Parts: sequence; structure tokens; C-alpha cells
Amino acid sequence: MLNHWIGEEDEENGIKLLLKTSELKKVKTSKFTAFIGHHRIFGRFLVFDEGKRKTIQICENFDFYSEMFHVPMCAHPNPQYVLIIGGGDGSTLREILKHNPQKVVLCEIDKEVVNVGLHYLQTYKNALQNERVQFVFMDGATYVKETNEKFDVIICDVTDIYPGEPAGSLGTSQFLKNVKKTLRNNGIFCIQSGSPIFHKDIVRNLYSLTKKTFKYSFVYASVVPFYPGGIWSFIICSDNLDPRIPRKTFIGKFYSPEIHKVVFVLPPFLKRLLENQ
Amino acid sequence: MLNHWIGEEDEENGIKLLLKTSELKKVKTSKFTAFIGHHRIFGRFLVFDEGKRKTIQICENFDFYSEMFHVPMCAHPNPQYVLIIGGGDGSTLREILKHNPQKVVLCEIDKEVVNVGLHYLQTYKNALQNERVQFVFMDGATYVKETNEKFDVIICDVTDIYPGEPAGSLGTSQFLKNVKKTLRNNGIFCIQSGSPIFHKDIVRNLYSLTKKTFKYSFVYASVVPFYPGGIWSFIICSDNLDPRIPRKTFIGKFYSPEIHKVVFVLPPFLKRLLENQ
Repeated sequence: MLNHWIGEEDEENGIKLLLKTSELKKVKTSKFTAFIGHHRIFGRFLVFDEGKRKTIQICENFDFYSEMFHVPMCAHPNPQYVLIIGGGDGSTLREILKHNPQKVVLCEIDKEVVNVGLHYLQTYKNALQNERVQFVFMDGATYVKETNEKFDVIICDVTDIYPGEPAGSLGTSQFLKNVKKTLRNNGIFCIQSGSPIFHKDIVRNLYSLTKKTFKYSFVYASVVPFYPGGIWSFIICSDNLDPRIPRKTFIGKFYSPEIHKVVFVLPPFLKRLLENQ
Repeated sequence: MLNHWIGEEDEENGIKLLLKTSELKKVKTSKFTAFIGHHRIFGRFLVFDEGKRKTIQICENFDFYSEMFHVPMCAHPNPQYVLIIGGGDGSTLREILKHNPQKVVLCEIDKEVVNVGLHYLQTYKNALQNERVQFVFMDGATYVKETNEKFDVIICDVTDIYPGEPAGSLGTSQFLKNVKKTLRNNGIFCIQSGSPIFHKDIVRNLYSLTKKTFKYSFVYASVVPFYPGGIWSFIICSDNLDPRIPRKTFIGKFYSPEIHKVVFVLPPFLKRLLENQ
């Protein structure tokens, strides 16, 4: 049995997180190369090679990253209309559908990502084929600017929100204003904001912008076993509801109503990072 | 400038966590090879190569592992006499000394580990040379069996507590009984219990044993950025004090009185692991 090692390779931050896999599929698209492996503990996993770095996108087991989107879904008392920006592989969608919403719009700029999920990741295929899901293949910033639909929860699950990168337009105050007008009453917005160790500027700048746009804006942080640094940050916002309070009971592998409350208790290094603005 | 990649290489669990370093010192001892590198974010770090696997022992920045021993130090109202079993590199000692105890006994089976800390890790050298520290070079299980000294806090910071490994004697009920008789009134015992993802049996078995030995016994878990899986578990025990309550105020980079309370809120996967016994 051949054993390959593949995973995160981040030259800039000087960190590699490699997983051993006995099988490896390689899918070339116009924009990136996707590798699909199987790790004996993390299960099926997906790596994107975009040239300058390789990134672990998702693992099907211990997926505490996607589970952190139960925070917005449970902060809202009854989320029926959900917009996911990014997340084309279907991993976040899989978690969102557990709340049985009426409709989910998945706005993904890159159709090829959805194809990878559909063809190579069985766990996510079922989510991607759910009849309540509507796909829109366009830039999320343009979608929230132009749409007339309104949502209870808007989730921004994109990896390249760093300035100058493809989804850089999602880290602007104009985007946040458009998100705001696309939220229904009691609407909640949640965006992944990177590693507080490796992407300090992202979380700091995004938090600064969201604070100016929404009445409630909080950073929360959690363990993500397959992301380098092991800790990941998210920002959650609302004009009506304090999102630190769970309003529904949901138990995942990592998420619970108790965990919902404690992810908002930030360690001193992260508190200081957010205060120094 | 040469760039080396070195770090955790765990074939059995199929995971590697490698850090980039521009300098690399290699120290051969009778039992292991130590590598000392410098990562631009994690700072100076230490890797042990014991043949079958390479393990990242410690990084001087973002050392949330050692900071988790502020939990026993702050659960005790006034810890003056402290025993550390293992931890010869001085990283845990550095944190313990911040509480200004009268005396710390460091019981390390391997003098070579202390020599690595003294000669190659400036941050820990100062701690290892502190005049309040007394070294005992012997097996921790033998030490607690034979000593007449008593301690306010006993910390067990050893990596190879897995059955059949060198420190396997530290995972037995006989060891725990000897720990108990070595604690002063209001004494607290704390032991690192591995990754709840990769070392499920360790945390489950140790927790089962400590529950039978102490009135209070709790598992807590935290992010450790430089350990694979990103989440690490600890067990804390006492016969007199509920250790979930911080009795002193201390602020670290990761630890705070608020964090002290929330590390005891366990995610469902870990709760289930501990219940299935």
C-alpha cells in the first residue's frame, strides 16, 4: 500500500501540516489542483494547490471548522433562509442543513469547487444535491449588492479574504453594508476571519469594520484540528440579537449550547490583538 | 540562508507538523537526538527524535501547553511547594516560577533533557538556574513513593505515559496513591493526558483511575498551536478543593481566570469519550 503525505504547505508562515493517505486523487481544474485523500482519523480530506501554497480545505471527521457555523444558526431563533458565500465543497452546507432551513442559497465564485464536492466527497455530495439548495455562481460581493432576496443568516466561508486576493472585496465596508440590507429582521451575519496567530491583520481589520456597521459584533475562536496553529477565529454580527446567546439546542461533535457561550471567552493574546487598533 | 523544515513526525497517527527554521542545532545524547530551531512566529523550539517518532516538545512563543499549568497553580490559593515530574526542558518551570513559590522540586528521569534546556534555550535557562529549584534525577513514580516531602501542587508533565513506554508507571493507581500521600492539605495534582483525538485511551484510562483516587477529578482541554490536532487534554484532581474555580488572578498570553473556567466546558465528542467507560 502506497502512503502519500499531503496537506497544508505555507511557506510564508513557515508551517506544514501533512496527513498520511493510502489513496490520493488528483483533479486539475482551470484555477487550481485539488487533491482528495483519506486519513485514518480525519477521514476524507481535500487539499487545494493554488501554486503559491497548498491548503487543507476540509476533513470530513473532526470538522470543528464547519461546526462553528452552528453559532449563527443557533443564535437565530428560527433560520429559514440562509445564504452561504463560498463553501462550494459542501462542508459548511452539510452542517447548515442539519437545522432544516426552507432554502439555502450557495453563492460560489468557482463552479469547479462544487464539482469537486459532487464527484469526490460522498459526505458532501448529499448536501450539495439537497433540493432546498440553490446555486449562484458569482462573486459574493456582487450577489449581495444586486439581489432582492433577504436572509435570516448569511455565512461567509471564503479562504482568500486577504487584501489583494480573489475574495478581497469581501473584507470591505461596502460589502458589509450590502450584507446588512440583505438580512431580514433579526438577521445574523457570520464570517470566518482566519488564524489569530498567522493572520492577525485579517481578524483585526474585519472586526474593526464590522463594529462600525453592526450594533453587535463579536469575535469568537475555536480549535480546528486540521488548520495550522490549531485555533481559528470567526466574527458574528447582528443589529437586533446578541449572538452570544444560543436560542436553540443543537449537539454536534464539537458544538453544544455550552460551547456556544464559551467560544466568546477569548484568551488574553487575542483580546489584546483586538484592542490595539 | 538555509531553510530547514523540522517538527512532529508521527507515522502511527499519520500526521506531520513541520516548522521552517533558518538555523538548526543538533544535539546527540545517549537516549535521543534533540533539534533546536527558530521559527519566526513560534520562536525557539525543541524537537526530540527518539527513533520511532519525532515530537515537538515546546515552542517559546504561543506556549499554551505550559500555560495550562496555571490552572492548578491558580486553583490553589497559595502554592508554595511545587513538584514537577518531567518537564526537564524548563518550559513548565518558567510558568510555575511566575507564581513565586518558595520551592520547586523538578524530578526528571533524564539529566540530558535539563542540559538541553540549560545550554540551548535561553528562555528556559533562567528558570532552570533559579535558586528555588531543586533537581532530582530519578523516576517520578519512585520519587513520590520514597519522598517524605509534601507539596501544594504536583504537576506531571511527561510525554511518554502510554502503557509500555518509559513513563508508563505514571499511569497507574499505585502512582496516584503515592501522589496523594505526597500532597499537603488542599493539595492539587495535575497531569497532561494527551490529545483527545490521537490518544483517546490515555485520557479515558487516566480519568478512570483518578476518579477512583480523588474526590474531585476533572478533564480540561485547550488549544495547543504546536501539537498535532491542536487540542490537548489535562486532568486535575484534589481531595479538598474544586479545581474548576480560580482562587488567584493571573493573566498570561492564553491563561486568564475566565479561560480557567471555560477550559472545563468540554465539547460533546470528548464528553462522550469520557462517559464510554
